[in-house]
Amino acid sequence: MNEALATRYRNFLARAAELSDLESAVALVGWDQETMMPEKGILGRAPLAATLAGVLHEKMTAPALADDIEALEREKGELGEQGAAQVRELARLHRRAKNVPGDLVRAVAETTSKATAVWQRARADKDYPTFAPLLEEMIRLKRSVADAIGFKDDPYDPLLDEYEPGAKTKDVARTLEDVREFLVPIVKAIGERPKPKSDFLEKGYDKPLQDQFGRELIKAMGFDMEAGRLDLSAHPFTSGIHRGDTRLTIRYHDDFSTGVWGNLHEAGHGLYEQNLSGELRRTPIGPACSLGVHESQSRLWENLVGRSRNFWKANFPRAQQVFPERLGKVSLEDFYRAMNLVEPSFIRTEADEVTYNLHIILRFEIERDLISGRVTVKDLPELWNSKFKTFFGLVPPDVALGVLQDIHWAAGYVGYFPTYCLGNIYASQFYAAAKRDIPELDAQIGRGDLLTLRDWLVEKVHRWGRTYPSPELIRHATGRDPSTDDFKAYIRTKFGELYSL
Amino acid sequence: MNEALATRYRNFLARAAELSDLESAVALVGWDQETMMPEKGILGRAPLAATLAGVLHEKMTAPALADDIEALEREKGELGEQGAAQVRELARLHRRAKNVPGDLVRAVAETTSKATAVWQRARADKDYPTFAPLLEEMIRLKRSVADAIGFKDDPYDPLLDEYEPGAKTKDVARTLEDVREFLVPIVKAIGERPKPKSDFLEKGYDKPLQDQFGRELIKAMGFDMEAGRLDLSAHPFTSGIHRGDTRLTIRYHDDFSTGVWGNLHEAGHGLYEQNLSGELRRTPIGPACSLGVHESQSRLWENLVGRSRNFWKANFPRAQQVFPERLGKVSLEDFYRAMNLVEPSFIRTEADEVTYNLHIILRFEIERDLISGRVTVKDLPELWNSKFKTFFGLVPPDVALGVLQDIHWAAGYVGYFPTYCLGNIYASQFYAAAKRDIPELDAQIGRGDLLTLRDWLVEKVHRWGRTYPSPELIRHATGRDPSTDDFKAYIRTKFGELYSL
Repeated sequence: MNEALATRYRNFLARAAELSDLESAVALVGWDQETMMPEKGILGRAPLAATLAGVLHEKMTAPALADDIEALEREKGELGEQGAAQVRELARLHRRAKNVPGDLVRAVAETTSKATAVWQRARADKDYPTFAPLLEEMIRLKRSVADAIGFKDDPYDPLLDEYEPGAKTKDVARTLEDVREFLVPIVKAIGERPKPKSDFLEKGYDKPLQDQFGRELIKAMGFDMEAGRLDLSAHPFTSGIHRGDTRLTIRYHDDFSTGVWGNLHEAGHGLYEQNLSGELRRTPIGPACSLGVHESQSRLWENLVGRSRNFWKANFPRAQQVFPERLGKVSLEDFYRAMNLVEPSFIRTEADEVTYNLHIILRFEIERDLISGRVTVKDLPELWNSKFKTFFGLVPPDVALGVLQDIHWAAGYVGYFPTYCLGNIYASQFYAAAKRDIPELDAQIGRGDLLTLRDWLVEKVHRWGRTYPSPELIRHATGRDPSTDDFKAYIRTKFGELYSL
Repeated sequence: MNEALATRYRNFLARAAELSDLESAVALVGWDQETMMPEKGILGRAPLAATLAGVLHEKMTAPALADDIEALEREKGELGEQGAAQVRELARLHRRAKNVPGDLVRAVAETTSKATAVWQRARADKDYPTFAPLLEEMIRLKRSVADAIGFKDDPYDPLLDEYEPGAKTKDVARTLEDVREFLVPIVKAIGERPKPKSDFLEKGYDKPLQDQFGRELIKAMGFDMEAGRLDLSAHPFTSGIHRGDTRLTIRYHDDFSTGVWGNLHEAGHGLYEQNLSGELRRTPIGPACSLGVHESQSRLWENLVGRSRNFWKANFPRAQQVFPERLGKVSLEDFYRAMNLVEPSFIRTEADEVTYNLHIILRFEIERDLISGRVTVKDLPELWNSKFKTFFGLVPPDVALGVLQDIHWAAGYVGYFPTYCLGNIYASQFYAAAKRDIPELDAQIGRGDLLTLRDWLVEKVHRWGRTYPSPELIRHATGRDPSTDDFKAYIRTKFGELYSL
């Protein structure tokens, strides 16, 4: 690298570090708002958040950064593999930011703010027509965003790219269609089998005890509480604020499942954030690879580990000790069957591991068609219900249990849904590879040793950050192309046995 | 105002609002670091804090802001009183920021970081010589800061101005000398009187109960918990993060005093922050007037209210109920005398209401002379001890109880100390004026009604923000020029009666 280029690259990295710090500030402000901020704080918090977003946008679109990026791209060959990845990643974000006009960004923010408020009331009142004009406006704006960023094949591509960098709509559509065709008959078959008893998982679980038990599990997973926290929030989330500071949030109801599997899920995200490479921190390839890969980590711990017989062979005795009244007389096998109850239901967030994916695929198909204009907002309730009938054999009794249940569209998260299903698919592929690499993995988990698996994930997934796009990361980690094979095998084996399919 | 000027003024206010939001972000990040951040978070927090400070500096010194300020100053007469105050305040901060070179700012930050670490060890080891070179460096840098900002009379002026805008060293020196000459003989006289019993205030106070009782008092003062929080931190502080979000922190030991009077003190700061004008928020005159005025609010509640007979007439029965074992058999009068124990001691932060001021004056005299070069860092331990002997009739047995006790100089807070004493003086003047305006004030407080006083402070002090410099605010609020008369009368009356002087 010649001196001029080296200087460019240093400046580029200094700007990237500043951007990363500002993103950390945004993350901290967001975490605080959900967990600590007093009620009236919103008066000052809204402008603060807008100002930080504005500064971030200004820095991301700075002409001097554009110059550095162009110069570095011209001599990409000189930068080495890692340097090229750094430039690729920041160039992608820079161009996205630069191509979307400020007025459009502000219009999305304003519509989000109005639409989420109206959505909340509309859902409570089961009143779709009141929400429809705002959803129409949001879809129109999101289509404008897609047009501003530009695309070759599908206007949904640039929206998807925000959450799953580099992914293409047609590939995702093919994958999800494959999963749908696989799952619909399985869900139907399971529906014809007798259901396991699961009432002992409901009600009567003391919240402080849930918190204590959850913290024990999180610790066993290797989540470092000296580099993180666990707090309460209305909607659980994980925020990797910056190096040495990863924060999980959770809510507890009086049932067993919300807390425990919520803890495992968030700690799965948390392990990923905690184990991003220290050296890559504050660089463009420092953050997690994609939302799909992020979700693969949470779902791997929540489901592939956390709803397995082996995991509970190690942990059920302790659960019985903590909750003797509810679980003292339940057998491990009944507990295992209860936690793996599969049953079509209306609400995505309460869905089991199998049907969950159909909820996602339904939303993906609809939002892709909304953006392309193949369907209109007016048609939505009907379309939702007819798809729901096809996927689950049921029709939602009202819009609150149907098309109005999620905040995502009101909040402008279009392109986000498919990453939930990709996460489940990736999780199965990672877990299958871990089992090949660690033949005694099941036995270890059955003894309560989760750290070998954790270390495998750190080595194969976490520490790479955004060095590779998700398909390449998956190839590196598993030695195979991304595919739905492991997901199908996992579902077939586990639920085949459980439901004698 | 002509159209061009109006546009300038709008742009100016928009920039000021952005600066205010960034200051809020800095405040939130700082609060989080002291209360919530996990231990290892410092790895990412240090660069985040530096980046935010850098962005703030960049925005504060932006050439476009300089243009607006100059244009507005040229046509100051057109802006009205409030507009002129807005320009005056931001111009002051802008010029301070612009005149101090970036290298000097970074050198202060680096020296602060080194010096505070070395100071901590040096204090533990009672080892002044190890700390001296870093203190010398800090004093040299602070003098450079003063030279860069510029001054007419005294190089200490621009340092003082950071904390007490507009104050002049010679005026502060005259005021503090006056207080010193008044207090030294009083402290000596009290030293010759028998001391009240106060052992029942020490030890045996349960921390959760202290927290409960403290929250009751804070609520009675009118601190709004829907617009604020109370958390634990190693060193209590109050942070007015932004509108609707004021956060108090406290620590509890196992004694009565640290918690209760700490709560009253911080809630005094908190009431000020909560009651700054909503309309002036995010403008240059939105924040609190000065550190001296801020401290007047905390000390007014801690001492003039919180160590008065009337306050405890209302609240002692409840204190006895909460802490029956320690206070059940103590009389109100003995309790009152114990909380007002005056006794020369070595440590400033543990000093009583009377001797506290002498601790401050000693530090002010020393730091002013360090900056002017009249005394050197080498001479400090000896100078400290000889002044201490003159003020208190005692000599500290070692440097940990002497010159090394405070973090301020290591942290670069030169010019800060006098605001503690100014706060006590202002507090007395405000309280005397409140009593003139509300003849039944004592009786109200004796009944537990603190809200009339709170409302008076909101109306006369809090809501004005930085509209006036502190002397003018005091004149507006009290109808009199700033003076030490009320302070002297308060001390003479209260402690004259307590100690039969």
